[in-house]
Order: sequence, then C-alpha cells, then structure tokens
Amino acid sequence: VTEARSAHPIAEILAIGTELLLGEIVDTNSAYLARELADLGINVYWISQVGDNPGRLRQAFTSALARADLIVSTGGLGPTEDDQTREAIAAVLGETPTVDPALEQNLRMRFEAMGRRMPEKNIKQAWLIPSAEPIPNPNGTAPGWWVTTGSKHIAAMPGVPHEMYAMWCQYVRPRVEQLADSSLVVRVVKTFGLGESAVEERLGELVRSANPTVATYAKPDGVHVRVAASASTREEAEALLEPVVHEIYALLGDEIYGEGDETLAAVVGKLLRAHSATVATAESITAGLVASYLTDVPGSSEYVRGGFVAYTVEAKREFGVPVDVLERHGIVSAATAEALAEAARRRFQSDYGLGTTGVAGPANHDDQPPGTIYVAVAGPSASRSIRLNRLGSRDVIKHFAAMAAIDLLRRVL
Amino acid sequence: VTEARSAHPIAEILAIGTELLLGEIVDTNSAYLARELADLGINVYWISQVGDNPGRLRQAFTSALARADLIVSTGGLGPTEDDQTREAIAAVLGETPTVDPALEQNLRMRFEAMGRRMPEKNIKQAWLIPSAEPIPNPNGTAPGWWVTTGSKHIAAMPGVPHEMYAMWCQYVRPRVEQLADSSLVVRVVKTFGLGESAVEERLGELVRSANPTVATYAKPDGVHVRVAASASTREEAEALLEPVVHEIYALLGDEIYGEGDETLAAVVGKLLRAHSATVATAESITAGLVASYLTDVPGSSEYVRGGFVAYTVEAKREFGVPVDVLERHGIVSAATAEALAEAARRRFQSDYGLGTTGVAGPANHDDQPPGTIYVAVAGPSASRSIRLNRLGSRDVIKHFAAMAAIDLLRRVL
Repeated sequence: VTEARSAHPIAEILAIGTELLLGEIVDTNSAYLARELADLGINVYWISQVGDNPGRLRQAFTSALARADLIVSTGGLGPTEDDQTREAIAAVLGETPTVDPALEQNLRMRFEAMGRRMPEKNIKQAWLIPSAEPIPNPNGTAPGWWVTTGSKHIAAMPGVPHEMYAMWCQYVRPRVEQLADSSLVVRVVKTFGLGESAVEERLGELVRSANPTVATYAKPDGVHVRVAASASTREEAEALLEPVVHEIYALLGDEIYGEGDETLAAVVGKLLRAHSATVATAESITAGLVASYLTDVPGSSEYVRGGFVAYTVEAKREFGVPVDVLERHGIVSAATAEALAEAARRRFQSDYGLGTTGVAGPANHDDQPPGTIYVAVAGPSASRSIRLNRLGSRDVIKHFAAMAAIDLLRRVL
Repeated sequence: VTEARSAHPIAEILAIGTELLLGEIVDTNSAYLARELADLGINVYWISQVGDNPGRLRQAFTSALARADLIVSTGGLGPTEDDQTREAIAAVLGETPTVDPALEQNLRMRFEAMGRRMPEKNIKQAWLIPSAEPIPNPNGTAPGWWVTTGSKHIAAMPGVPHEMYAMWCQYVRPRVEQLADSSLVVRVVKTFGLGESAVEERLGELVRSANPTVATYAKPDGVHVRVAASASTREEAEALLEPVVHEIYALLGDEIYGEGDETLAAVVGKLLRAHSATVATAESITAGLVASYLTDVPGSSEYVRGGFVAYTVEAKREFGVPVDVLERHGIVSAATAEALAEAARRRFQSDYGLGTTGVAGPANHDDQPPGTIYVAVAGPSASRSIRLNRLGSRDVIKHFAAMAAIDLLRRVL
C-alpha cells in the first residue's frame, strides 16, 4: 500500500494568480474543488492563494508536496510571462520543460481553426516535463498537467472557471477517484420553488442524521439537498444512502426536479421530448433568458420553436397580447403573463407557450415594486400562471423569473 | 525605521475554519481584506485557508510570522472547542492566556442584556495574552486580538462577515493604515475581441514595467489590463500611473470598451442614449442572450425595443429573413446574420438591429463545426458583420457570441 493510496489521502489546493491576492476576484474555484474532494472522501487540510511570483510559487509547491498526497492547482497556465505554474513545478521537480510535438500541433491547429496566427509565446502551452502528462482542455488552449512524483500527484489546471470545471469533471476527477478508496457515496437532490428553511423544515429530523448526513444548500438553481454516506465499501454506503434518499423524495415530492448535474432546462427538455411537444417563449421581464436557458441543452432545437422579447408595450401588442388585457390588468399581471404565453404558442405554433412579466428594478413599474414576477404556461388544454417575489439585483431577479417559468412548465408537464 | 514601518509591509491573510476546507462556504472575507490591504498599499503575498486544527493552526501562524509583517486572520474566535485561534497564537508566542477581568465583565453584561445565562465555556472569549490587546466587536460577543511581537503584528478577527467588517473598518483598518506609508493606485482597462497573448503583444515592453506594473487577465467579459502604481502619496502614484494608462489607450485603441466595474452592455447602453438611438435583436445561436445581457442594465427599457429568437428556419423566414438568403448562403452565414439584424430593425422600428447565427454544438450544423459564429449589426446607414470562432461548451459559445454582437454594436456606434 503506497502512501497516495492510503484510505484517506490528503489534498492541498493552490489557487494561483496575483488578482486573487489583490481581492479583485473571489476564489470560487477552491471552494468548488474542496467540495468535490470532500465528496470523494479526500481530506483537504490547506487551501492557499499565491501570486504569479516564481519564488513564492516554488515555495508553495514545495511545502504542499511535503504535507499532502495530492496537490490540485488552478491558474498560471496562460501563455504570458505572468503565468509561471509550469516553470514552478518543473523547478521543484528539477526537470526541464520541452515542447511536446503532439501538443504543439494541437495548439497550432486550434489557432488555425480560429483563423488566427499563434503568437510565438503561446508555445509554452505545449510544454511538458518527463513527470507530466497533458490533460486536455475542452474549453481553451492551455492543457493541464497531471504530474506523478513518487507516490504524490499534482493536477495543474487553468484558473478560468469554465475551463477548470470541464477539465476537472472530464479528466481529473476520474483519476482522483482512483486515489481514494474509502467509500463515500453522495447524492444531490435538487428542488426549485421552496426556500432553504422551508426545505429543511420539510426534512424534519433527517437533517440531524449522522450517516448518511443530510444538508441543504441554497443555490442559484434552487435548494439542493446533499446526502452523503460513508462505509468501508461502496455497496454498504449505497445501502445506507438509499432509504434516506427515498424518504427525501417522499417528503419533498414535486419540489424535486432532478439530481446531480441535471439542470432544470435539461429535465424539461426530456419531458418535452417524452411528450413529443414543442415550446416557444414570449418574455418581458426575462428578456430572452428563458429561451437562452432552454437552448443551453444540446439538441434543444428539436423542441424550442422560437421566442419573442416583448420589452415594450407596443411590442407586446404587436406580438398578440390583446389591448384590453394590457389596459384592464396592467403590464405586470397574471393576465398579461398568460396572454404572452398564449401568443407565443399561437405565433410559433408550438404545443406550449411560456410568458413572463414583472419588475426587474431598480424603479417601480406599473405601480409594482422590483422583484414582482408573473410567469405563465399556456398548453393544449389550459393556461396556468403564478406570482412570485424576489429581492435582489436585476440579474438575480431575471434569473429567478426565468427559472420559475421553466419550473412551471415542468410542473405542468 | 522599523521593519513593520518599511515602505512596503507584507501581509498574509489566514482564513480559519474547517467549513472552508469542505467547500461549504466560499471565503469572501479574504477577498475583501485583500482588496482593503491593496488599497492601503500593503502587499499580500499569501492567503491561506486552514481548518480548526491546533497543530496546523500553529504551523500557519509560525510560517506567516516568518514571512510577513502583518497577519490578518478571520475565524476561530467562537466559544466552542473547535475555535482554536487564541490557543494557537498563544502557543506560537509561548504565552499563557488568562481571563481579563474587564473583558469578562463586558461579556457577562452582553449575555445579561440578551436575557441569557453565559455558558461557562464562553469565558475563553475574555482571554488575553501579554502581547495582545483586545479589539472591540460591535456586532458580536467575541473580541478580536491585536498582537504585537517585535516589529510584527497579528490582527485576529471573527469569521462571521458582518462582525469582521465592522471590526475591520472601525478598529483594525485605522491601525493598519499607520503601518503603511505607501500608496497604491490601480486601474483596470477592459478589452473585448483580442486574445490574452495578442493583447500582451500589443502592449509590448509595457508588461515588463516595474512601477506601475502592467498585467493582463483573461476574463469572461474579455481581456483585462491591470495597471498598478505605488508611491509614498496617492498623488505621486497617480502621476506614475497616468502616462502608462494613456499609452495603453494608444496601443489598444478601439479594443478597449471600459474600465473597472463598467460592463460591455452598460457601455453600449450609454452610447445608445448619447445617440438617442434604440436597438432590437434577432437571435439564432444566442437564443435570447443578447437581449438578456442588454437588459441587465437599469433603464435599458428606454432603448431596447424588443427581440426575436429565431431558432428554426421557419421562424427565421416568418420573422423576415428572405428565403433566397437562407437558400443561397445557408443558415450559418454572414448574409443570414445581416438579414436577421435588418429584420430586427424593421420589425421593431429601431435604429439598430443585432443578428446572430452559428453553431452552438455539440453537432455540426449546416456543414459548419461547433463554435462557428456570425454576428451582425444593421444601422441607419449600413450593415456590418463579422465571423468568429470559439471552442467550448454550448454556454461558453453562446456567451461569447452574445458579447461579440454587443461589442460589434459598440464599435459601430
């Protein structure tokens, strides 16, 4: 049994970038990775932010290698002189980087595909050292490094969050899973519509359970319930987990829209496919965000017919909202949301129509305060609308309204 | 001149709490403190998150004292056994905590005022060591510690953000100001359209400048150029900064859309207002995201007329894209992007129209690979379109296409 394969490997997270030390950005990467590593049963004892400084970077990798089995770093893999992560790892291991021909070819092809000349300094993104294997970067030019030195490992990933997430999920996490052999099984059940304390109240005594643990987290896509069981084998852990997850489904019922990586839009897409149904949107407060979220799902062109952003009264009228609805009920009303949904359905000849209206703020509109939201679904048999309230900035209110519209369609389906 | 009063004192931030290492909360305290310290001209070289573990806490304070003049810590001052910050500092300094009678009285009075009996374990919140002075906590029971050891200082504050902010602003920041006698001034110039290495290439020798320093960062809203100058007064720092910022504007010209907190959509909104002009959208690949970004700006209802999501061929045709354009040039083409922009302008009677088309992936579309993007602007005098390529997931491609469309409107305006 080597050290790195011990039951509880110790990990250290290094976030690299001077902007972190200046407080210009909050290091959300490290919190994400800490959570992921915890899910895998790997203990994180230290997280550090360090600047783009060769000496301090070497110092950071040296002390991390001394006290951890696995170092997960983000940042410093760009093409510029600031980016010193490769240099630091090579120096600490006493190795010399060379240009890897396959990586170089890949890099030049990426620039060619973008129709751009590769600046010569980018060549260091094709560097490797003998102890490093490249990790593909689905969302950018800089490959990561998976470094093995003795029983220890370094996963060096980019700092741009969407590049890091994709690289972690597709390539790094599966390798890290193999380092951990104690069995922690985690399920994340996702709800939309209830607040965190309401979810917790519904779960009752469950949140005090010790194994599995049950915890709630308020997230932009709703309240998540995280259930984690640990045992000496995966099977035993799953046996502990299963009845609790079952109970959670019984307690939360229809509030649950999915699990794990499932997004609300993907769940609704699946339901639409199952019904061979199509959808269209007519958006006021969300101004295109509902259509955009629906089309974040691959293959959504099969069921999204189109959409309309009716930001002005004239646009609403022109799109097909009856004048008397606008005049009698006001722009910010359930009737207008329903009329928008109906018009979307009619104009795009879709099975379902989604409509949104409300006040994004900061000023009142139609005598209603910011955060007032109406969303509606029009379907083959009937329309349904709900009124919601949300405090926050414009983008928070818009996001919540868009999610609420998509969730209402889920409930109707 | 003592070490701590040197022109550039070095600070280290320690965020204490096991929940940080589990990723259960994001460490926003450290980013806030880093920004504050940068504003005071104090260099932060390290930020670390460490758990509630006596041994690792002592190790963290020991190494921080060895490499920094000032340690700012948050967390670990609560009354429970988990809270080990006082114990760790005392151990590192070789001192023994004793109950301070004045602090004890204060503590008991606070509990009395709340109508609660003080649990006896809370008494450690009245501890002091010879090297520590108490720092009042306006928002909680736990006082902080201001520790002086030789020329070095430790400011130990609570981890609860609103307690930390109040203690920092009222009591700690004024003391830290006295340690710093240099002034750091920072400007962040934001560009869209060029890659990070291209921006750096344009900046040439500037990126090697020592004071001010010039560094580039790739962000979701483009490449940022950060310029930072330090001097003994704010005025001198600004005098160093000004000519360099001027040169950056000369070198990057039109690639620059704004500075600091300005967003691309807000800048375009300002330009539209200045021209008393309105805009409308017709989106295929971005599916509503352009309209949504434009309306993230407060007051955007004054210049955003509306939008159309033309996700299918029929929807494009119905909205006003001529059939022969679609047939001759294909859906994914500059001509279709321009026809969409024209149709948006015509249908919504706006001064400008924005059109987008392309392939979000993962499959090819219209014989073109994912990441192929065309965006167009139609204006009172002419249309303009550009072709772009972007690798990545659907949401990355959509985001980039939406930003590129808004940026093209900026350039036209």
